[in-house]
Amino acid sequence: MTDASSLAATTIAESFKGVFRQHPSAVALITAMTERGPVGLTASSVASVALDPPALSFSVTRATGSAGGILNAPSFVVHLLADTQVDVAEAFAHSGRPRFTPEQGWSRLDTGEPYLPDARAALRGRALHLVPVGSSSLVIAEILEVHVGPAAPPLLYHDRSYRTLPRADA
Amino acid sequence: MTDASSLAATTIAESFKGVFRQHPSAVALITAMTERGPVGLTASSVASVALDPPALSFSVTRATGSAGGILNAPSFVVHLLADTQVDVAEAFAHSGRPRFTPEQGWSRLDTGEPYLPDARAALRGRALHLVPVGSSSLVIAEILEVHVGPAAPPLLYHDRSYRTLPRADA
Repeated sequence: MTDASSLAATTIAESFKGVFRQHPSAVALITAMTERGPVGLTASSVASVALDPPALSFSVTRATGSAGGILNAPSFVVHLLADTQVDVAEAFAHSGRPRFTPEQGWSRLDTGEPYLPDARAALRGRALHLVPVGSSSLVIAEILEVHVGPAAPPLLYHDRSYRTLPRADA
Repeated sequence: MTDASSLAATTIAESFKGVFRQHPSAVALITAMTERGPVGLTASSVASVALDPPALSFSVTRATGSAGGILNAPSFVVHLLADTQVDVAEAFAHSGRPRFTPEQGWSRLDTGEPYLPDARAALRGRALHLVPVGSSSLVIAEILEVHVGPAAPPLLYHDRSYRTLPRADA
């Protein structure tokens, strides 16, 4: 790679990052049970992929720590968060914050995964495909169980801020 | 599959569909040039995957028509739409609507793909991976060029309606 093409690659990656900072997305919290205990991470990349089987995708930017725990777990739970759940989203978006505290409202599914009953929905799934892309991994997950929570406006992330989507008739 | 497990599978797919109807997403319009002319489709599944290389994912629910054209094209353009672009989003979300009309504001990139300069961003890419999932396909695309458009609030889709995200300070 020449210096010029290296510079171009850096510029494209920077522009790409800036564009996605302005790309709003609904916020999810993904959890799994591992040999070392429960793990979780906040993700803004959850998208529906198929209905036959019901499948969604998400990506993680590394393969260590909580992300590694989820990538290696036989099953996990994708929680779609309500706008009242900023605190738990923040706790699992940054390292060193208290996690799985009683105040965060955790329960367990019968199958052992950490579960937030107050989420708008909790989707238990297992990986169908893991696709490495650079230092990230994209997970395609088949959904095995759907737990629908209380109706609530969704939590969004946009331009480094948590947002909500007001009701359409508001 | 027994009748009971078949019923359970149908119920999970229906619940899954209902949950994602309430999952807001930013709206994209993906275009390509094919031997039969330009094709495009509206997608609500675009997510950032990696920065090294810059890569995003999206899915299409079938492999024929415009989706097939994009899956088979050597390159395509992922437009992230502004809240002023509901009409063009609708035109490419339903069959039989007029497409690539002068009123929709189309241009062309030097590389030939149909291009909407009024989009918030237009990302030219090529498929790194195509992953079939049931009758859908998930595309992981490396981004080769980023065209940043006019600053504008993003177009969202939620509960079968087009929405926008008001400015944070509004």
